[in-house]
Amino acid sequence: MTSVSVVGASGYSGAELLKLLIRHSGVRIDRLFANTSAGKKLADVFPTFNKTLDVTLELYSVKSISKSDLVFIALPSGEAMNIVPGMLAAGKRVIDLGGDFRLQDTSLYEKYYKRTHSAAQILKRAVYGLPEWNYSQIKSAALIANPGCYPTSAILPLAPLLKEGIIESTGIAISSLSGVSGAGKSTSLEMSFAEVNESVRAYKVGVHQHFPEICTILTALSGTTPSLSFVPHLLPITRGIYSTIYANLRKDVTAETVCAIYDKYYGKAPFVRFSSTTIPEIKNVSYTNYIDIGFRVNQEDKQIVVLSAIDNLVKGAAGQAIQNMNIMFGFDEKEGLK
Amino acid sequence: MTSVSVVGASGYSGAELLKLLIRHSGVRIDRLFANTSAGKKLADVFPTFNKTLDVTLELYSVKSISKSDLVFIALPSGEAMNIVPGMLAAGKRVIDLGGDFRLQDTSLYEKYYKRTHSAAQILKRAVYGLPEWNYSQIKSAALIANPGCYPTSAILPLAPLLKEGIIESTGIAISSLSGVSGAGKSTSLEMSFAEVNESVRAYKVGVHQHFPEICTILTALSGTTPSLSFVPHLLPITRGIYSTIYANLRKDVTAETVCAIYDKYYGKAPFVRFSSTTIPEIKNVSYTNYIDIGFRVNQEDKQIVVLSAIDNLVKGAAGQAIQNMNIMFGFDEKEGLK
Amino acid sequence: MTSVSVVGASGYSGAELLKLLIRHSGVRIDRLFANTSAGKKLADVFPTFNKTLDVTLELYSVKSISKSDLVFIALPSGEAMNIVPGMLAAGKRVIDLGGDFRLQDTSLYEKYYKRTHSAAQILKRAVYGLPEWNYSQIKSAALIANPGCYPTSAILPLAPLLKEGIIESTGIAISSLSGVSGAGKSTSLEMSFAEVNESVRAYKVGVHQHFPEICTILTALSGTTPSLSFVPHLLPITRGIYSTIYANLRKDVTAETVCAIYDKYYGKAPFVRFSSTTIPEIKNVSYTNYIDIGFRVNQEDKQIVVLSAIDNLVKGAAGQAIQNMNIMFGFDEKEGLK
Amino acid sequence: MTSVSVVGASGYSGAELLKLLIRHSGVRIDRLFANTSAGKKLADVFPTFNKTLDVTLELYSVKSISKSDLVFIALPSGEAMNIVPGMLAAGKRVIDLGGDFRLQDTSLYEKYYKRTHSAAQILKRAVYGLPEWNYSQIKSAALIANPGCYPTSAILPLAPLLKEGIIESTGIAISSLSGVSGAGKSTSLEMSFAEVNESVRAYKVGVHQHFPEICTILTALSGTTPSLSFVPHLLPITRGIYSTIYANLRKDVTAETVCAIYDKYYGKAPFVRFSSTTIPEIKNVSYTNYIDIGFRVNQEDKQIVVLSAIDNLVKGAAGQAIQNMNIMFGFDEKEGLK
Repeated sequence: MTSVSVVGASGYSGAELLKLLIRHSGVRIDRLFANTSAGKKLADVFPTFNKTLDVTLELYSVKSISKSDLVFIALPSGEAMNIVPGMLAAGKRVIDLGGDFRLQDTSLYEKYYKRTHSAAQILKRAVYGLPEWNYSQIKSAALIANPGCYPTSAILPLAPLLKEGIIESTGIAISSLSGVSGAGKSTSLEMSFAEVNESVRAYKVGVHQHFPEICTILTALSGTTPSLSFVPHLLPITRGIYSTIYANLRKDVTAETVCAIYDKYYGKAPFVRFSSTTIPEIKNVSYTNYIDIGFRVNQEDKQIVVLSAIDNLVKGAAGQAIQNMNIMFGFDEKEGLK
Repeated sequence: MTSVSVVGASGYSGAELLKLLIRHSGVRIDRLFANTSAGKKLADVFPTFNKTLDVTLELYSVKSISKSDLVFIALPSGEAMNIVPGMLAAGKRVIDLGGDFRLQDTSLYEKYYKRTHSAAQILKRAVYGLPEWNYSQIKSAALIANPGCYPTSAILPLAPLLKEGIIESTGIAISSLSGVSGAGKSTSLEMSFAEVNESVRAYKVGVHQHFPEICTILTALSGTTPSLSFVPHLLPITRGIYSTIYANLRKDVTAETVCAIYDKYYGKAPFVRFSSTTIPEIKNVSYTNYIDIGFRVNQEDKQIVVLSAIDNLVKGAAGQAIQNMNIMFGFDEKEGLK
Repeated sequence: MTSVSVVGASGYSGAELLKLLIRHSGVRIDRLFANTSAGKKLADVFPTFNKTLDVTLELYSVKSISKSDLVFIALPSGEAMNIVPGMLAAGKRVIDLGGDFRLQDTSLYEKYYKRTHSAAQILKRAVYGLPEWNYSQIKSAALIANPGCYPTSAILPLAPLLKEGIIESTGIAISSLSGVSGAGKSTSLEMSFAEVNESVRAYKVGVHQHFPEICTILTALSGTTPSLSFVPHLLPITRGIYSTIYANLRKDVTAETVCAIYDKYYGKAPFVRFSSTTIPEIKNVSYTNYIDIGFRVNQEDKQIVVLSAIDNLVKGAAGQAIQNMNIMFGFDEKEGLK
Repeated sequence: MTSVSVVGASGYSGAELLKLLIRHSGVRIDRLFANTSAGKKLADVFPTFNKTLDVTLELYSVKSISKSDLVFIALPSGEAMNIVPGMLAAGKRVIDLGGDFRLQDTSLYEKYYKRTHSAAQILKRAVYGLPEWNYSQIKSAALIANPGCYPTSAILPLAPLLKEGIIESTGIAISSLSGVSGAGKSTSLEMSFAEVNESVRAYKVGVHQHFPEICTILTALSGTTPSLSFVPHLLPITRGIYSTIYANLRKDVTAETVCAIYDKYYGKAPFVRFSSTTIPEIKNVSYTNYIDIGFRVNQEDKQIVVLSAIDNLVKGAAGQAIQNMNIMFGFDEKEGLK
């Protein structure tokens, strides 16, 4: 059994992680950590765990993870960088669900996350945990930067098209729609039910911290630097991300060509489903680790529209983290994610 | 033109009041007051008023209402009692949408509102603003205690049945379901979208501040003191209250008898609609000042179920306040409420 | 491995059953049956099963279940009674999620389901599949009548209180709130999003087919025949049932007494959680097989309010069916339901 | 008083129209027509009109509108073209809320609406009822083609930018999100609550009938033929459209330049609100006739993102129809729309 601990177990991603870990046949939950909820029972924070997981949340210290093989971090961005160096020094393997280790360039981090990076010295050891592209580095990684939810929904559909050169690298537009759980637990008026319900709004247009993640990872994976617009929107749903991506075609391509490209990159990927005929819907991926990809080629105007759907808490966070753990520790990639 | 001011214009009830006042042909909006939002434009707090109502929110003082014929108060309970005595002393007429003047018995107020009443001396001057029952007192009142949303939905269906003696005064159960706007603007985690959506919960079982209001007003109107259970529930909708009321019949009654009773009390009431065949639904009363009442007599078990629906922000708050104003100032009772 | 088939795999309960069966370690899915969807791939009806369960839906015949140890039926009520006699004759064990075998009295069935019962001769063999009360009969049953969603939410909280004689058997009121998936797949205008959203309505007041199920099962389990009102309501949520139950106390009881009674009946039940302090919420039981029970004693008025929450598709349907299967085939009662 | 009739009064747009007409000071509702609901009271179809509008729905005939000055048509597309020629011949003025008279080119109509146009001879008399652009033609029009909801949300923000030549006419992407009421009353499974709730899906990608309307009207208004992608999405809300529009800049422009352009075209338009700082939200325009426009210039990548929000039933349908009526009959443009 692999022994795992979770730092940040009282947030939505942490809770989702625990639900998946409970079902995993090869894992033993070691210890759970939280800040303001330390000292409480997990079931007092999330009554859904009552009778299922009887654990008390603790304040984190590096000593307390001495028996863990793996530590998941599900803290707000900016907090992981303070504790990961100590974890690595203690020889632990780490999967961070936050944004602290996704941007190798600290100046980008500082521009978009509005804070100084305090652990730049370990950035080189971080592997971007997108299993469909970085499988072998993940296998041996000490530190996984688990991808952001928006980037997962945008990079998986775009990277093959850019790498194969069938779309222009300029003029790409990504319109992404997210459920509110992506923002984590919130006490702000603007996330209250009465403000979110029966409405929609774009937010952080041009300044969202996932924008540089999408750009730099696409560049790394495809060898091409894209120029793109990214607009996230908040929807009155709890879970799910839907991305609608517009790009200009460089070549005359058919739907079959596009399918063949996706098949080349994802034909064996257990959690990528693509189709030239089915339009993705969030409900088809809810509570699963799948990403659904659809598209429509408009040869007349030399444009393509690509659509994707994920569950932001699963493939966009906790599920992808489990998938990374499975690869790191030699489990079946689908274990715990059926 | 009647000149009106609103204290507490930055909350949901205040905003609803302004939307209705704008459409009223006999009213001129004088001044708007707020606390933390004082100094801001109304449209900066509620962008929906942009281009429609160009007013700056001010800090309240008794001097600033010198030109108002009527002052609406839409503050959280506990605040009105500090300013109403001064308003009355200045000769102003007042409609308070909060709970400070609904309970004549200050010990009940203190038990359920958890604070001392600071204006007990003016309680006697307060008229409970339920137009269907207190029309003539409302006409001449200086101070209206506008009814609570739950009480409006429960008292209107129950009072005629109690007064006519067809139901037992004991063993009454009121199950009420409310949209979240009833709680006002909220920054608590438990009112955040992710916590409210796709869920339901009862709350304040047996201790809600509307419980004594329902009991004492029913007693006053019907001459009978009821013994009842009241359970409010929070639903994932923004607006609306649905009350399902269970009572034991004292007599053999038919649906026709019940209809005749409602017709006796509400046949000429412009905003009460009742039916022995149509089941109320919140959507039929949304954005209107109507209360819809339905019922089903179960003669076999000598029970009756009565159902009611209102829009908590209209008949349950701002609309009923306008209705009271119309009566006080001699307008058509429906003016501004079509 | 136990070999199971599902008749009615293209409905919401059938799909939920399949999701749970996939995770069950002791089960092999044999064959899936549907009517109008026969011939289609399951994933064409529910794209969420794409890459997960690659099965073609078939038209049912008794021959086709020859290799199944157990058959689940998730058909609309009225259809199971036509095929179950043949299944039993073929020596199969059956769990029916519909209402055909829940009422032993065919006159009640005919009154509330508005059709003649065509398989009255096998009603005696049907065991009501409420594991917390009928464990030993379930163990050896050939035919399980899986409880209705509303009855599960009402009977589990009420039966112990009635049996122990602490509440009156008359004057009980059950106010139940349900998500729309309880109604199954629907093409009626009244179940369309625009009609359901931002609204609430009671329906089938006094004539719902779950009303006699609640009464007769409570009588069978407690030895007391209750007289009660039951009002179901439709809410704008997809999953979940919330029941608020009002009863009159026969004795002076404290919260501790009530807790002790629940502990006597459910202390070892793996899926019942009760508390004198925590108010149930649907979100705490969503996607789980738990029922959460809370209550409040009002000694002054000799009344008690009991609250319960379940996921209508899990404890109210597919999960409870799995729980019954686990008991019938000797699996751990929680297998597949974690 | 202007006497108006409504053909198609039993649909969502028809009902919205009636709610607005009731508040209009210069209008008398003459007669209401419906097909399957003919013979019923309006309040039996929409109980919200009970006590407010007591009218019986009739089957339409040209004779029956003899006393009407204006006829609104709120029928599904394809039906208006059968009755409008007769109305015009009878000398009536007509506002059609459907799509039959929005495309002057019948080949486009036939391609996207999938039916033959039976009234091509009167197309020339139809004026596209976008008051901000076609005010003077509307004033004297006999037949108004009231704009589609998506086109209203896309054309108003785009037309000034295209006409002033600050954006490229190629590579425009319009991502539009709509509430379900836009689809009208529906009995299809895919519009049922359980299928729409907690999900999002794109639909009719590249083949939506509003696509040619957007293209041809933009061409007519701006003098430039745009090449664009348009993707509509269905959201789990009842009302509202949100459009996020991506375009490439032809010139170096600042936010001030863009504001100045919008001010040039819409500075005096009573229902257009634009801002370089406020992001539109659906809730700010719900139940109003406003369109809110926001934008963000990205000079680095020479791109602009423009955002707009409307209420699809008001500015996207019934409200805009009232606005057109006001212009045609010399009322204040805002009458009935406050």
